[in-house]
Amino acid sequence: MIPVEEALERILSYVKVLEREGRPLLETLGQVLAQDLYASFDIPPTDNAAMDGYAVRAADTHGATLSRPKVLPVIGEIAAGHPTRKGLRPGSAMRIMTGASIPQGADAVVQFEETDEVERKATGKPLTQIGIGREAEADLNIRRAGEDIARGQVVLRQGTVIRPSEIGVMASLGLARAPVYRRPLVAVLATGDELTEVGRTLPQGKIYNSNAFSIAAQVRRYGGIPRVLGIARDTVASLTRKIQKGLDADLFVTSAGVSTGDYDMVKEVLARHGEINFWTVRMKPGKPLAFGVLRQGERRVPHLGLPGNPVSSMVTFEMFARPAILKMLGWRSWEKPYLMAVSQSRIENKGGLRLLIRALVERRDGQYLASPTGPQGSGILTSMALANGLIVVPEEVALVKEGDPVKVLMLDWNQGQGASQ
Amino acid sequence: MIPVEEALERILSYVKVLEREGRPLLETLGQVLAQDLYASFDIPPTDNAAMDGYAVRAADTHGATLSRPKVLPVIGEIAAGHPTRKGLRPGSAMRIMTGASIPQGADAVVQFEETDEVERKATGKPLTQIGIGREAEADLNIRRAGEDIARGQVVLRQGTVIRPSEIGVMASLGLARAPVYRRPLVAVLATGDELTEVGRTLPQGKIYNSNAFSIAAQVRRYGGIPRVLGIARDTVASLTRKIQKGLDADLFVTSAGVSTGDYDMVKEVLARHGEINFWTVRMKPGKPLAFGVLRQGERRVPHLGLPGNPVSSMVTFEMFARPAILKMLGWRSWEKPYLMAVSQSRIENKGGLRLLIRALVERRDGQYLASPTGPQGSGILTSMALANGLIVVPEEVALVKEGDPVKVLMLDWNQGQGASQ
Repeated sequence: MIPVEEALERILSYVKVLEREGRPLLETLGQVLAQDLYASFDIPPTDNAAMDGYAVRAADTHGATLSRPKVLPVIGEIAAGHPTRKGLRPGSAMRIMTGASIPQGADAVVQFEETDEVERKATGKPLTQIGIGREAEADLNIRRAGEDIARGQVVLRQGTVIRPSEIGVMASLGLARAPVYRRPLVAVLATGDELTEVGRTLPQGKIYNSNAFSIAAQVRRYGGIPRVLGIARDTVASLTRKIQKGLDADLFVTSAGVSTGDYDMVKEVLARHGEINFWTVRMKPGKPLAFGVLRQGERRVPHLGLPGNPVSSMVTFEMFARPAILKMLGWRSWEKPYLMAVSQSRIENKGGLRLLIRALVERRDGQYLASPTGPQGSGILTSMALANGLIVVPEEVALVKEGDPVKVLMLDWNQGQGASQ
Repeated sequence: MIPVEEALERILSYVKVLEREGRPLLETLGQVLAQDLYASFDIPPTDNAAMDGYAVRAADTHGATLSRPKVLPVIGEIAAGHPTRKGLRPGSAMRIMTGASIPQGADAVVQFEETDEVERKATGKPLTQIGIGREAEADLNIRRAGEDIARGQVVLRQGTVIRPSEIGVMASLGLARAPVYRRPLVAVLATGDELTEVGRTLPQGKIYNSNAFSIAAQVRRYGGIPRVLGIARDTVASLTRKIQKGLDADLFVTSAGVSTGDYDMVKEVLARHGEINFWTVRMKPGKPLAFGVLRQGERRVPHLGLPGNPVSSMVTFEMFARPAILKMLGWRSWEKPYLMAVSQSRIENKGGLRLLIRALVERRDGQYLASPTGPQGSGILTSMALANGLIVVPEEVALVKEGDPVKVLMLDWNQGQGASQ
């Protein structure tokens, strides 16, 4: 038996960050920047108004109050996107809109509400003059050029995971495409004579191919591009044909065919296409696991053979395939988000394995409570659908009592996760 | 000024769950089931072997041990997907593979490792007989029909958010398509003469249109389908043309044009197309907000006018547009995931507003620590890119001291969020 960490380390040693590509900004959510991004200009590019109001020289407003406004001639008007070359003469004001560039000579903006503009409009007074109703300090309501980003500055570093705010920052730099590591193409193959494709009538003694779907959904959830190869039958010809269809992938994931049964033709056929190792990983669910490399000419495709049980398949994917996908995408951390919770059940761990118990975590009275979601048989996929986390019982812990603190790997947490078109 | 909760409630009162549609399973991540799903058959459909081994009658193994195996004639072999009509006679065994249906008459499976099969193969003994090396209790290594899902049972309820495990469960029911509420189409329009499209040279006094990108990315992140309408200029003709291009959307989001400047033509034009209300919401960033309805014939499109400052735009989207999208998608909860952290800074709240401070939350020594990500000016988008959460300072709290507990709304948490092709 090998420990979980060792299995992961061996798998990741075969997995490399993929090549760079340029992609339209909006398609890069969850991808990783492949280079540092510098600003070639200041953002904002000029000093500009943070409020609608009047641009003035602060010194000219000395002593002004709302009841005794300082009246200045209005010598122009500046809208955002329409910069003026006209400077502000001492003792004058210019009407200015939010985002508009501050005219030469001005060093403050007094917002409409602190002038007599509304009153002037109401009483029919000309707007060729304006009463400034406060003393402005220098820089009042001015956003300085380069306040967000200074020219020449590194704005986003290589290795940054792209979220909506990073997309906004890249757009503010004027980029239409982002330099990212490309998404891995992941071939997904289910094996077994007992499988029937969804959407067909279920013959006696058969079950539907659900693993290919849960695996493909996990691939997509973590940013890979799944290619579902369908079902391989337990014959050399069928398996060989299917394997060849996935040899251009970056990762090849098979479901079932890695335990000790004679009919697990998969093992034999995979061995012919490269190398394959069978591991018994010190965890439950998910003990049997195969890992190897498929070869085609010079090409080497890492291959992960997940157990056929639906839950084991999903849990081993989380532990081993998810980090591999994230590494290929350029992520630098693949630790699953976790929290500490209070176990609501007694959990025995007789076998000295690392248990991953499907659980529902809820917050109550400022504490997180973790409750196992019913029977933990590895065929019982509904218990996975009820769960939002996996309670970790370490190998060396034989018993978790009700009320004990436990670490829970969170399967989901955020709203809107994995949403895509 | 209206409180955040009241603004949200008013907005959501205009927003309805969208129509149902059937979508291929893999495309429904993050969508919501539009009906209860029942099982029309048991899963697994038959009693089947949980291990590779020999199907026997438990009673026939009485007294068996590895050193004194009970030898039984082997009368057949059953592979997964190849059920047999042949029953198991008392006093005999059948070789059986994982997942294969248990033959009539058998009530236990003894795994290979607890028989003398390996020894027989090694010593050339015939496999027409097998030595059973343990006493089997009834049900040993048998997965019962309906163990995961019993026929007629509700398997997944209407309102369930679809994750990879739900996709696996639906596939195991044989469904090729899932009945879900459709994704909202969200029109995104940026306004302002100062904006230039990304990918072009930046003229003097202009800035790039970044808000349309950050907003569209947020739409996609939360499961909507963004339609970016580009930039509307500050003229009635330009705005009218752009608005008409988005009137088939389910939600219309505009950026900028909702503050008090004269050049905010947006307000006037929007009012012509329906109704519009200007709110000052008791929060910072994001005070000015517009909400209304655009009309075209019988059609009513809810319209949300976000402030033009990049950070205000993203934060008001989180607080108001995100819940609207999730409600249209059929989600029943739109509370943002949060955690309690220790503030690493002193935060003053002079204006009696709800502050949402961009912050980086890190776990250290079992505690979450929240540190503001630099200057909080609402034009400073880089501080949003550095943040993973928003510290909430309630309206009635005038001062948060270093070391005080604070609630933090988490902007991201999970790995692989929002990843899509």
